[in-house]
Amino acid sequence: MGYSREQLIEAVSSQMPEKRWIHTKGVMETAVKLAEQYGANPEKADLAAILHDVAKYWPVLKLKEVLVDNGLNDELLQHDKQLWHAEVGAFVAERDYGITDREVLDAIRYHTSGRARMTLLEKVVCLADYMEPGRDFPGVNNIRELANHSLEEALVAGFDSTISLLVSRKQIIYPLTVLARNDLIKQLEANS
Amino acid sequence: MGYSREQLIEAVSSQMPEKRWIHTKGVMETAVKLAEQYGANPEKADLAAILHDVAKYWPVLKLKEVLVDNGLNDELLQHDKQLWHAEVGAFVAERDYGITDREVLDAIRYHTSGRARMTLLEKVVCLADYMEPGRDFPGVNNIRELANHSLEEALVAGFDSTISLLVSRKQIIYPLTVLARNDLIKQLEANS
Repeated sequence: MGYSREQLIEAVSSQMPEKRWIHTKGVMETAVKLAEQYGANPEKADLAAILHDVAKYWPVLKLKEVLVDNGLNDELLQHDKQLWHAEVGAFVAERDYGITDREVLDAIRYHTSGRARMTLLEKVVCLADYMEPGRDFPGVNNIRELANHSLEEALVAGFDSTISLLVSRKQIIYPLTVLARNDLIKQLEANS
Repeated sequence: MGYSREQLIEAVSSQMPEKRWIHTKGVMETAVKLAEQYGANPEKADLAAILHDVAKYWPVLKLKEVLVDNGLNDELLQHDKQLWHAEVGAFVAERDYGITDREVLDAIRYHTSGRARMTLLEKVVCLADYMEPGRDFPGVNNIRELANHSLEEALVAGFDSTISLLVSRKQIIYPLTVLARNDLIKQLEANS
C-alpha cells in the first residue's frame, strides 16, 4: 500500500509547474550530497526532499482549510502564506503518501522556517532548499561555500538572507526562524 | 520620602560617565518632544528617560546578582548583557527611587528590547533612545525623519537597524525585539 519512490515522484511532480519540479530535483540532489557529507541518512534526505514542496502550489484557501480542519499549527495563519505549505506538506505526506517516519515528516515541516534544536536531517533539507543549483539570490554562493565546511554556518547565512530580505521589505519575521538562527549560533559558539 | 526631579538627576548622573549622562539628557529632551507630538504624558516621558540607563554602568556581576536574587526575567541571562540594564533599571527605579507608576517602570524595562503591544510611553522612550541628538549610526537620520510623521514607522526602522547589525555580526537576536517589530508592522498595516 506504500508508494514506491517512482510513484511518489509522479504524484508530487504532477502537483506543481515544471519549474518547481526542477527546483525539487535540485533539492533532492543537494540534500543527498549534504546527507552523505555530514552523516545524515541519504534515503531519508531524498524522501523529505521529494515531498518538501508537495503543497507549494495548492490554492491558499485549500492550505488554510487543511490547517484549520486538522487543528494544525494555527499560529501560522497569522504569518506569511509562504510558510503554510511546509506544515501542510508534512500533514499530507503522512495522510496521503503513508510517510510515518517522524524525522522525515519534521524535515518537511520545518524546511522553510527552521526551528530551535533542528535535527541533522532538518538542517540538511532546509539548507538544500536554500542552496540547490537552481537558486540564484544575493549571497547564495557564500552559503554554498560555507556548506563545504559547516552545515550550521551555511544555514545561519541562509536564515540571515531571509531575515535581511524581510527587514528590507518591512515584512513580518517568523519568530521560529530567529529561534532557529539563534540556536545554531549558540551551537557554533559551544563548538568553537 | 520621594525624590525630587533634581535629586533623581543627581543620583542617576553620578552613576555614569559624563558622556552617558549627555546621552541621557538627549533622551530626556527627545522623549518629551515625542510625548508632546504624539499625545503621551511628557512628565512620565521625562521621568522614564532620566532613569532609563541608571544601571547601564553597573558591573556585569552586580546586574546578574540583581536579576538572580530578585527573581527577575532570568531568560535575559541567556541573552546579551546589553539587555540586562533595562530590567535592572526598572527594578531599582522602584526599589531605590520610589517610582511606582507601572507605565514609567515598563518604559524603562522595555526601552532597549521593546516588546509586543508596546504602550505609547514605551514607544516614545524607546524611540527617543534611538534618535536623541547625540546618536550617530547608519540610518539614524532616516529614523528622525520618519519620526516626524509616524512613531511606529520610526520605531520599526530603529529595530531594523538593531536586527541588521546583529545579523551582520552573527550575534543572537533577542526574540522580544522581533515580536515588537512584527507587532508594530501589523499596527501600521491595520491603520493603512
